[in-house]
Amino acid sequence: MWSNFPKERFSLPGMFSARKLNNPRLFPLYIGFIVFFVIFALHHSTYIKGSFMVESSESSVMVIVVTPTYKRYTRVPDMIRMANTLAHVKNLYWIVIEDGNKTSPAVEDILEGTGLQYTYMAHPTAKGFPKKGWYQRTMALRFIRSNTDQILGTSKDGVVYFGDDDNSYDIRLFTDYIRNVKTLGIWAVGYCGGSPVEAPNVTDGKVASFNVQWSPKRVFAVDMAGFAVNLKVVLNSDAEFGTSCKRGTGAPETCLLEDMGLDRTDIEPFGWEGKEGQRKIYAWHTKTKPPYIKGKLETFGYQVEIE
Amino acid sequence: MWSNFPKERFSLPGMFSARKLNNPRLFPLYIGFIVFFVIFALHHSTYIKGSFMVESSESSVMVIVVTPTYKRYTRVPDMIRMANTLAHVKNLYWIVIEDGNKTSPAVEDILEGTGLQYTYMAHPTAKGFPKKGWYQRTMALRFIRSNTDQILGTSKDGVVYFGDDDNSYDIRLFTDYIRNVKTLGIWAVGYCGGSPVEAPNVTDGKVASFNVQWSPKRVFAVDMAGFAVNLKVVLNSDAEFGTSCKRGTGAPETCLLEDMGLDRTDIEPFGWEGKEGQRKIYAWHTKTKPPYIKGKLETFGYQVEIE
Repeated sequence: MWSNFPKERFSLPGMFSARKLNNPRLFPLYIGFIVFFVIFALHHSTYIKGSFMVESSESSVMVIVVTPTYKRYTRVPDMIRMANTLAHVKNLYWIVIEDGNKTSPAVEDILEGTGLQYTYMAHPTAKGFPKKGWYQRTMALRFIRSNTDQILGTSKDGVVYFGDDDNSYDIRLFTDYIRNVKTLGIWAVGYCGGSPVEAPNVTDGKVASFNVQWSPKRVFAVDMAGFAVNLKVVLNSDAEFGTSCKRGTGAPETCLLEDMGLDRTDIEPFGWEGKEGQRKIYAWHTKTKPPYIKGKLETFGYQVEIE
Repeated sequence: MWSNFPKERFSLPGMFSARKLNNPRLFPLYIGFIVFFVIFALHHSTYIKGSFMVESSESSVMVIVVTPTYKRYTRVPDMIRMANTLAHVKNLYWIVIEDGNKTSPAVEDILEGTGLQYTYMAHPTAKGFPKKGWYQRTMALRFIRSNTDQILGTSKDGVVYFGDDDNSYDIRLFTDYIRNVKTLGIWAVGYCGGSPVEAPNVTDGKVASFNVQWSPKRVFAVDMAGFAVNLKVVLNSDAEFGTSCKRGTGAPETCLLEDMGLDRTDIEPFGWEGKEGQRKIYAWHTKTKPPYIKGKLETFGYQVEIE
């Protein structure tokens, strides 16, 4: 086969000639090179299975997911499902912040099981902050700013996303949307704010308004699950989730993004093009029902978090 | 390197000799074999990432998951989370049965995205059956019995599990428990039947009773999420989910298992040993809250299922 190749193809001046290639004593070297190349190529391919074959050139960008959490009946199953989702995503750093005095062994086990890089820390809500993860997300922003190199590792770029543990996420939210955010990415969220879907209103690729029912006049009328910001935006500001957001009629998203120095012209909308016939929703604002528990709280030695 | 190997090592009578190996005209053939072997070995390794490196010798057993489903607000996000979970499991066949006249394109998309083998079919609940997936699970049992070879593929053995789309599952439920069931496997389920956990009561490896609050006298006092049966048990009976289960005080699990000819001595309990200090729960009976939707049901062209 190879010996029938036109010899000219291999005669690159100053490199190697077909004559050398035909030297049988060098064949073990060629075999070594080929085996090494095949191992290298397969190792660096992102193929997992089926359409989870999603990561390509952008996968060197670190996806940084910030998840506030707290002890409740459904926290462990919620975190298990979120872990199963995030574990599909390459190059992801998960920051989980417990609203409590100490971290939970059950959550630690789940995080350990993902094989992802993560930091799990406890910060009980400080006085004046609402009990909605505001303080925990602020602690995460400070952690990102003071541990940037550790989080990025060999990645040169990062994107920060606030993903709560009870929402539902399509893998493509992380691989197709979040990892491609250069400044501020915004997309639709299902079952949110009293609507079947909240979405940016896009004309000629630009967002001038938001298709939401609740408080549509906010500069950024978007749910926490509906945006991500490039790490550079986080590092170039000291914006935090304060004790209140008066500009957001109670919702902190617009205050954070405005305090980061962003305006509507910075928005990169994702998923509005309606390719394949219908626009698809990759983030769903779901809540898990508290279970019906009656009588004694016997756990029979099983690891289960009781409220 | 190779040329320094003792020649005797390669002198297998009737096969090939070191003399032939030294023939440079055969080297392209050897290169081909080596590249093929490396690709084959890597392709058949079960490594995905981190601790999802879970599958070993038992992975040739087909895990057959049966999921009845129906159109509702939270069905798509529920199915997305379940798909993200099952997509981690090798050698899994997913049978999804719509309680309706036709299948849903949104669900079809989710199934397609997993890369798993699956069958998605529509069977509206027949007269007399309760609206709780009984008829759909019966249709799945008939499908398994009449399409066994197609489902098994190259696998020699299978296990059938009834997994609803709103529950939460640890990956190890499928890899460590279900795939190892020889007859009837039973394990703990979290947040079930009014208890933090329902579990088999195990003494000396045997189950004589069940730690449940609701109807503990049933022969099999177990939730749908808490057991799996070997495919042989399914094929050796014509048991189905009938229009009622009088022996189960309304719960169909015990009738199905009794009709399959099983009794308590057949139970293989999983996860009760309390290794690592605490017994762990790998299946959670969760429900997703219906979202708060008010006013008009505008979807802005996004793919969203409306009740």
